[in-house]
Amino acid sequence: MTSFREAVDARDMDAVEAMLADDVVFHSPVAFKPYPGKAVTAAILRTVVQVFEDFHYVREIHDAGGLDHALVFEAKVEGLDITGCDFLRFDDEGKIVDFMVMVRPLRAAEALAREMAARFEQIQAEAAASG
Amino acid sequence: MTSFREAVDARDMDAVEAMLADDVVFHSPVAFKPYPGKAVTAAILRTVVQVFEDFHYVREIHDAGGLDHALVFEAKVEGLDITGCDFLRFDDEGKIVDFMVMVRPLRAAEALAREMAARFEQIQAEAAASG
Repeated sequence: MTSFREAVDARDMDAVEAMLADDVVFHSPVAFKPYPGKAVTAAILRTVVQVFEDFHYVREIHDAGGLDHALVFEAKVEGLDITGCDFLRFDDEGKIVDFMVMVRPLRAAEALAREMAARFEQIQAEAAASG
Repeated sequence: MTSFREAVDARDMDAVEAMLADDVVFHSPVAFKPYPGKAVTAAILRTVVQVFEDFHYVREIHDAGGLDHALVFEAKVEGLDITGCDFLRFDDEGKIVDFMVMVRPLRAAEALAREMAARFEQIQAEAAASG
C-alpha cells in the first residue's frame, strides 16, 4: 500500500485525495478558520504542491499507536527557504481525519499566504463545484 | 525523572535549561537564522513563556527510537489563539540538541514576532552576559 509520503513524493494527488476521510478537517498554516471536508482539503493540497518548489520531506515522527504522524518538510516559496510540518491524524480505517500544517520562518509563511491568496478564489470555486 | 513537558507544565525553566545540550541549536518560528548554543536558547525559552498566555500542550508524537519528539501546544498571544509545535531532537544522553518551533495561524505568528522583537535586545544582552 502506498503511504501518504510516497504519494506526495510521487506528486500523485489522486492517491493523496483517496487517503482523505470525507469529513477530514484541514487546518491551514495561514488562516485561523478550519476548512472542513474532503473537496476543499484536496483542492488546497493540489494548489500547495504547485506553490512550493523543491518540496521534500526531511523528518518523520510517528506515534507508537500509528494514528498521529508529523512529517517535516523543506521547500521554497517565492525563492525563500521554508520549513513546515504536516500533522496527520488517521482513523481506524487508515483515512486522514485531521490535517494541520505549520510553517516557518515568518517571511516564508507570509510569502506562502500571498501565493495561496492569489489562487484562493479558484480553490473555493473548485470545492463548490466538486462537492 | 522529569520530562521536558512536565518541566514546561510546571514553568520550571531551570529544569528546562538543564535538559539543553551545550551546543543545542534553536530554530525560531519567526527568524530564518538558527540560534546556536544553550545560553541564547534558554533565554529565548524563558521569554517565550512570558509572552504566551494559557500555554498548554495538547498532543505528543514520539518516534519509536525516542530521539524525535513533536509536542503540539495551544496558547494565546496578544489575545489571539495560537497553535504551535516544539520539535525536540535528543542525543543519546537525553539532552536536547535541536529545538525547532513552528506556529500557526499567520496573524498569531506575526503577533508573536512583535512580542518577541520587543524583548529581543534584552535576550541578546542576557545571552552575551551568561556565556
